[in-house]
Amino acid sequence: MTTITQRQARVSAYLEPKTDETLRSFKDIGKVQQQVQKPRNRKLCDDLQVAIRRSGLKDGMTISFHHAFRGGDLTVNMVMQVIAEMGFRNLTLASSSLSACHSPLVEHIRHGVIRKIYTSGIRGPLAEAISRGELEEPVQIHSHGGRANLVHSGELNIDVAFIGVPSCDEYGNANGYTGNASCGSLGYAKIDAETAQKVVMLTEEILAYPHNPSSIKQDEVDYIVKVKRVGDADKIGADATRMTSNPRELLIARTAADVIEKSGYFKDGFSLQTGTGGASLAVTRFLEDKMRRHNIQAGFALGGITSTIVDLHEKGLIRKLLDVQSFDRAAAESLARNPNHIEISANQYACFDSKGASVDMLDVVVLSALEIDTQFNVNVLTGSDGVIRGASGGHSDTAVAAKLSIIVAPLVRGRIPTLVDEVITCVTPGSSVDILVTDHGIAVNPARPELKQQLENQGIKTVSMSWLRERAQLLTGEPNPIEFTDKIVAVVRYRDGSVIDIVHQIKE
Amino acid sequence: MTTITQRQARVSAYLEPKTDETLRSFKDIGKVQQQVQKPRNRKLCDDLQVAIRRSGLKDGMTISFHHAFRGGDLTVNMVMQVIAEMGFRNLTLASSSLSACHSPLVEHIRHGVIRKIYTSGIRGPLAEAISRGELEEPVQIHSHGGRANLVHSGELNIDVAFIGVPSCDEYGNANGYTGNASCGSLGYAKIDAETAQKVVMLTEEILAYPHNPSSIKQDEVDYIVKVKRVGDADKIGADATRMTSNPRELLIARTAADVIEKSGYFKDGFSLQTGTGGASLAVTRFLEDKMRRHNIQAGFALGGITSTIVDLHEKGLIRKLLDVQSFDRAAAESLARNPNHIEISANQYACFDSKGASVDMLDVVVLSALEIDTQFNVNVLTGSDGVIRGASGGHSDTAVAAKLSIIVAPLVRGRIPTLVDEVITCVTPGSSVDILVTDHGIAVNPARPELKQQLENQGIKTVSMSWLRERAQLLTGEPNPIEFTDKIVAVVRYRDGSVIDIVHQIKE
Repeated sequence: MTTITQRQARVSAYLEPKTDETLRSFKDIGKVQQQVQKPRNRKLCDDLQVAIRRSGLKDGMTISFHHAFRGGDLTVNMVMQVIAEMGFRNLTLASSSLSACHSPLVEHIRHGVIRKIYTSGIRGPLAEAISRGELEEPVQIHSHGGRANLVHSGELNIDVAFIGVPSCDEYGNANGYTGNASCGSLGYAKIDAETAQKVVMLTEEILAYPHNPSSIKQDEVDYIVKVKRVGDADKIGADATRMTSNPRELLIARTAADVIEKSGYFKDGFSLQTGTGGASLAVTRFLEDKMRRHNIQAGFALGGITSTIVDLHEKGLIRKLLDVQSFDRAAAESLARNPNHIEISANQYACFDSKGASVDMLDVVVLSALEIDTQFNVNVLTGSDGVIRGASGGHSDTAVAAKLSIIVAPLVRGRIPTLVDEVITCVTPGSSVDILVTDHGIAVNPARPELKQQLENQGIKTVSMSWLRERAQLLTGEPNPIEFTDKIVAVVRYRDGSVIDIVHQIKE
Repeated sequence: MTTITQRQARVSAYLEPKTDETLRSFKDIGKVQQQVQKPRNRKLCDDLQVAIRRSGLKDGMTISFHHAFRGGDLTVNMVMQVIAEMGFRNLTLASSSLSACHSPLVEHIRHGVIRKIYTSGIRGPLAEAISRGELEEPVQIHSHGGRANLVHSGELNIDVAFIGVPSCDEYGNANGYTGNASCGSLGYAKIDAETAQKVVMLTEEILAYPHNPSSIKQDEVDYIVKVKRVGDADKIGADATRMTSNPRELLIARTAADVIEKSGYFKDGFSLQTGTGGASLAVTRFLEDKMRRHNIQAGFALGGITSTIVDLHEKGLIRKLLDVQSFDRAAAESLARNPNHIEISANQYACFDSKGASVDMLDVVVLSALEIDTQFNVNVLTGSDGVIRGASGGHSDTAVAAKLSIIVAPLVRGRIPTLVDEVITCVTPGSSVDILVTDHGIAVNPARPELKQQLENQGIKTVSMSWLRERAQLLTGEPNPIEFTDKIVAVVRYRDGSVIDIVHQIKE
């Protein structure tokens, strides 16, 4: 049919004088329809190499991963191996965090595959190599909320996100708990899925369409690759959920629970977050008795969710769980089972520029420390030898946002003082910390005199930081200062993107 | 403390030579922390006027609404009334659709408050006023998927989205079914919540934080206003869910169900979408018997979900429901109750540039028509008098994407032929329509000869469009042509944003 229809005449007359580029010409419609009717490019790729090729990855680009599998992650090493074999170079690696299991990355750094890293933390041989100055550019250490902020600011521009999931359908609908590699919340992956140019999903199983509930949605996924394993869910909680039997940790935890009870924030509906690690985790147990005794339920628990927290939820003591990261397989399974165990993204969890971050609704947070100084600044990144062996995590995000932020730490560890004059590396500024609870006494930040008063009125004895510092020094003596070279190996970014500290290469 | 700490010295030395603006200076940290520690601006506003003021609305901006309440919507008129009283002018109104209940907008058009409109449809006095040329700029008519495309392309840039919900918490977590004004899926509102500069949530109830499940999330909402009513859920399905008793509609529906059964697409796991309206809805009922007889379950039903579809889901005949819009209160309540009744956004439903639109997974769609022409072009927008009285909806999105698109329509309505030589307004191009089912015969698009063959092999008789056209003409005679002026009152946009037709002002 070559005659002009009335419609074609109408549309032509309308478009003729238009310069508006958004009104694409009528002549294009036929083409577009043809395009639509072509068989769609399928998302499913035969192997990882095909997916990487289709993603358009180029040298110098930024690739991302989530760390929901923590020490059990198999995705980062698998993808980086293929990327290295394909000959890519100068990549920026932006994993929401990295663990001791990622030591194979050292080789990719040495061969120029990875030039720059953004991560919340690094441990093990990778951290040691970086501390020795092996990475060309300094590693950028961010908090969990800070990562979302870096994405929003445009500094962290993810070209290709690789997202490992236990299962998904052929269109990419996925959650983190259907299947064997059950990592639970995909809170960190959500940011990448929403913002990356291209998203490659790695899955252990392909399920029937439409798979639900979906944490990552079909309209966020470009390519899908079935692989044998993406992660070992049994290794997620290796260190995180073990209940301590260390009497010193139990003493600190009991004291911290007393502090919370008497702080004025312990009311029905209060909210709390406890970090991982012995003392912090044990606080939850001691709070259980107090909650029963006072007939108090928590409104919500936030953050990394452990099986201990799930237990209190299922006992009716915590109404809702806001889960950005499930800290063990049991927590992951609870996410599937409990309707009030709620998955949240890193932006909803803790981002500084979020329209609504749950940390801002938080009453009490209990956090640990590698070091704390007399100004209440906290180091959770570098060891006493100056070598990186930790993670920023949600530490600085929650410390500043929660109404009551408590640091729990032993005053000394072996011959090393935890409380020092100035921390080797500052991750969380002291202005955001309210109380330090040690096995030798409790110190309240002088910026919170009303809190000190409240505790003392309730019979909780407090001491000064300088008193605690002297006591630490008596126990350990003055450790030799660490020597550093001029080379910068890590830049520590505060949650708003600003530089809060610098880590130099250690002298060996 | 005015002495420089070692940390400050480290950071200063690092930042000194930097020009990278993304690395904000250490000096800003103190300021930022102060900002964080200030009591947060609360989202809850005393009234709508305060929320509008805080949103930063200015003359000439674009404001948006969702149409989940359809004929029961109370939000658009309420907000526009306050905006008009506050003296705003020249606004672009982008409601995902508009109904007969929005006739008060005519006054806001006359007074210059509204200058331009984007919508899927218009009906009643507002449509008549626009057809008479009362709106300064032509109304832009888009499909449901096309709206998301216009947002992505940057043409439709929403400054302030107003989102009415039955309930939410103080941070803005909301779904569409908790509370009395239960509208079900917030599929259209999701796009606005994700992309608008500012989001104002109107709610009938404030619930305890954190409210879940949340379709709109806390990190998408800026301001919250409690109002008496946002919509009347009982009016959502006024016309949509009534089961027809019209013998002609039943005949067409029965024929369409036969066509589906014999089409080759009727297999276990097939997917379907049926529009609202008598014949289309009745098809579902006739399919029920066939599904039982052949022991076939549908994999999913898509689109606007009605209580009829929910009924089949609860009987186990449709495994999953993908719901962008709940078409009655019963469907809305099912969304709360049935775990496999899944809420999807307009982008997941039908957007042309979506990474994954469910329409592309659709086997069969049954759609209605105000007019269809011998080239299979369909008009669902203008009446036989040239006056706008319909909606583009998901018509063109599903017609082109589904493997089998069926138009059901009576051959004539009273003295007016439905089948014409050229439709007054083309919304869905004929190249995307496969079959027309009328009460006088079935015509297969000549572009699908294999489909015609398949049906005839299965004993379904088909006729040609020209045969049907002659028959229609015999029954009605040749209607007088409608006369239009040169003024353009509506621009019809295809799902990719291109202009597919133009509507002129009618001569009166």
